[in-house]
Amino acid sequence: MGRYQSRGVSSKKEDIHKAIQHLDQGLFPTAFCKIVEDHLGEDPEYCNIMHADGAGTKSSLAYLYYRNSGDPSIFEGIAQDAIVMNIDDLLCVGAYDRILLSNTIGRNAKLVPGEVIQAIIDGNEKFVQLLQSLGIVITTTGGETADVGDLLRTVIVDSTVTLRLRREEVIANNLIRPGDIIVGLASFGQTSYETEYNSGIGSNGLTSARHELLHEDYAHQYPESFDPAIPQDLVYTGPFHLDDPLEGTPLTVGKALLSPTRTYAPIIKELLMEHKSLVSGLVHCSGGGQTKCLRFGQGIEYVKDNLFPVPPLFRTIQRVSHTSWKEMYEVFNMGHRMEIIGSAQLLPIVQEICAKYNLQVRQVGRCEASKGSNRLTISSEHGVFEYQLGRG
Amino acid sequence: MGRYQSRGVSSKKEDIHKAIQHLDQGLFPTAFCKIVEDHLGEDPEYCNIMHADGAGTKSSLAYLYYRNSGDPSIFEGIAQDAIVMNIDDLLCVGAYDRILLSNTIGRNAKLVPGEVIQAIIDGNEKFVQLLQSLGIVITTTGGETADVGDLLRTVIVDSTVTLRLRREEVIANNLIRPGDIIVGLASFGQTSYETEYNSGIGSNGLTSARHELLHEDYAHQYPESFDPAIPQDLVYTGPFHLDDPLEGTPLTVGKALLSPTRTYAPIIKELLMEHKSLVSGLVHCSGGGQTKCLRFGQGIEYVKDNLFPVPPLFRTIQRVSHTSWKEMYEVFNMGHRMEIIGSAQLLPIVQEICAKYNLQVRQVGRCEASKGSNRLTISSEHGVFEYQLGRG
Repeated sequence: MGRYQSRGVSSKKEDIHKAIQHLDQGLFPTAFCKIVEDHLGEDPEYCNIMHADGAGTKSSLAYLYYRNSGDPSIFEGIAQDAIVMNIDDLLCVGAYDRILLSNTIGRNAKLVPGEVIQAIIDGNEKFVQLLQSLGIVITTTGGETADVGDLLRTVIVDSTVTLRLRREEVIANNLIRPGDIIVGLASFGQTSYETEYNSGIGSNGLTSARHELLHEDYAHQYPESFDPAIPQDLVYTGPFHLDDPLEGTPLTVGKALLSPTRTYAPIIKELLMEHKSLVSGLVHCSGGGQTKCLRFGQGIEYVKDNLFPVPPLFRTIQRVSHTSWKEMYEVFNMGHRMEIIGSAQLLPIVQEICAKYNLQVRQVGRCEASKGSNRLTISSEHGVFEYQLGRG
Repeated sequence: MGRYQSRGVSSKKEDIHKAIQHLDQGLFPTAFCKIVEDHLGEDPEYCNIMHADGAGTKSSLAYLYYRNSGDPSIFEGIAQDAIVMNIDDLLCVGAYDRILLSNTIGRNAKLVPGEVIQAIIDGNEKFVQLLQSLGIVITTTGGETADVGDLLRTVIVDSTVTLRLRREEVIANNLIRPGDIIVGLASFGQTSYETEYNSGIGSNGLTSARHELLHEDYAHQYPESFDPAIPQDLVYTGPFHLDDPLEGTPLTVGKALLSPTRTYAPIIKELLMEHKSLVSGLVHCSGGGQTKCLRFGQGIEYVKDNLFPVPPLFRTIQRVSHTSWKEMYEVFNMGHRMEIIGSAQLLPIVQEICAKYNLQVRQVGRCEASKGSNRLTISSEHGVFEYQLGRG
């Protein structure tokens, strides 16, 4: 069993996929999110999407940071993480507008006081206001905070979103074809709508990143921040304390691991409003990292041979954990968290939009024909790696 | 600090109410659920509700039962709990139709295998089919299952629902007035749409009920089923094993604690479709138990002097825990989980509807005028108890 599995997480979630495989797949089975008929409006030209996701174990890290610094505002970023994990999935089906948002927070009330809940709720409101200022119309509808200390060691933050969408606007990822280019939007750096440098971590691979980087001091100080069933030699095995600088960035290690997940909503909205016909598909590189694309399209060989240089945080995780580079690309986004797939004409258009937001962009690869199931080849500065759906 | 607080839960959630008090209260601030404008349809005659809730620590009990029996199907009831905690809240604003449902499950993958997730998803689908057969149109939209062992000891099951509603159909609980009667719908017994006797427990007070009733053997066998920070003398302090019979019922203690939360949707739908004008308000006696009504209406003294006899499970919890009867009514529903408040003409109508579903019903009390804030007097077989919002 790998280090990742031994910590009780899997980037592939095989048993969960099995549990849901007999469920109705909705109107657009090939799409990034499940899409159902317009039960909310009963209009045959519309459809509905209700989608759920959360900040995952990133909240355990925020808890460490909060206990160490005494500053609950670090949880504002966790609220953003939970929202972006939803809305950036929505972008991949062509949805970016008139979104209803609800939160579900569970906490251990003995360890997580009201000021943390306040910070999550404030972060939620602030990020929604930022989105609105960027032209993304989203409305908070309330939510639930449950005191469930018998279930939760610390705190979990999830969000759910709902919207109606015109069926003709849906991107179902069924148009991806050989000859398409793959444009990657950077996960790192600082866009015009962010207030500081972003490490690019997003909200995936955090269990691994946290344990690989942080010092075992935290295991003794905050035993509530991890599963006691994890083998002791896999708990906080790293060299860093939260306040240590992360080489190659203006951030501390703690702040780098807690960089709020960047949204690509303003860029994708602008692109789709004007140039939707050029787009064959969109892939949010969340769980599964750079291999996420394998689930979309048919008979496609994804060739990624021009990735961004691996950002400092991922380089550091690899260096201290000795994780194989092949696995790194399966767990982390490694530099871009959104892929726009389509006509070669896309590149200058996306470049122009991204320039306005100070977001780095590049053609990271292309689609070729695959005889059987989808394949992926990554040719990187660290080697050439082959992937296939359902295989290692 | 009381036994309840020492276990890290509060039926009042003061700090959470404080954290959200500055948020926009929506279109109908007096209503049971937050209601917002019709962002989904942009029709001024409509409004939107998005609501979240879950099975709480009842899933820890299901985990015990599952580990003890090897039978994952016990988790089907947990799926029902999470759904009913939402839809029976929706009933209280007059909503019972065309509901979208999403689930958010978090688990410790080392302890909670795929067969449990499968049972939750199956339970979800089965209960939705039951609701549809009862005339409640609800659609599953998918959801998220996250492996977050560093956060979760076992498993948490939450649901979120969304719907559009005509504004004229909204029940905002603002019409509750002196002279109204309070009709209670039983939480215990067996309705025509249930397959076995229901203890009435619902999904509130389960942390307390579980620890008060169950034997300390479970503390040693399943330390992952509770917060290790709970003082040892408050962990599983009861006399019972899961398979022991519960006196006065056909159920074992385990099955009684796990009785799936009953929905009142078919009864409330039938009532509101024909007789909405007689209804001043609806109260789901969830968190806060019999004192939940205090949050609704203005200048009302709720007098409850004809409650159902306390069902066996709650009697047993009181007997073994020595909890004061006054506190029992603040934590548990104690016999009815839904209150219909309105004209005296309601009683025979509700009785007739309930008879069809084999659901016990009675007038449990009435509304009188209160000079200041709302008050509640419970005159029960166990004494007379006075309550006021924000006081003990």
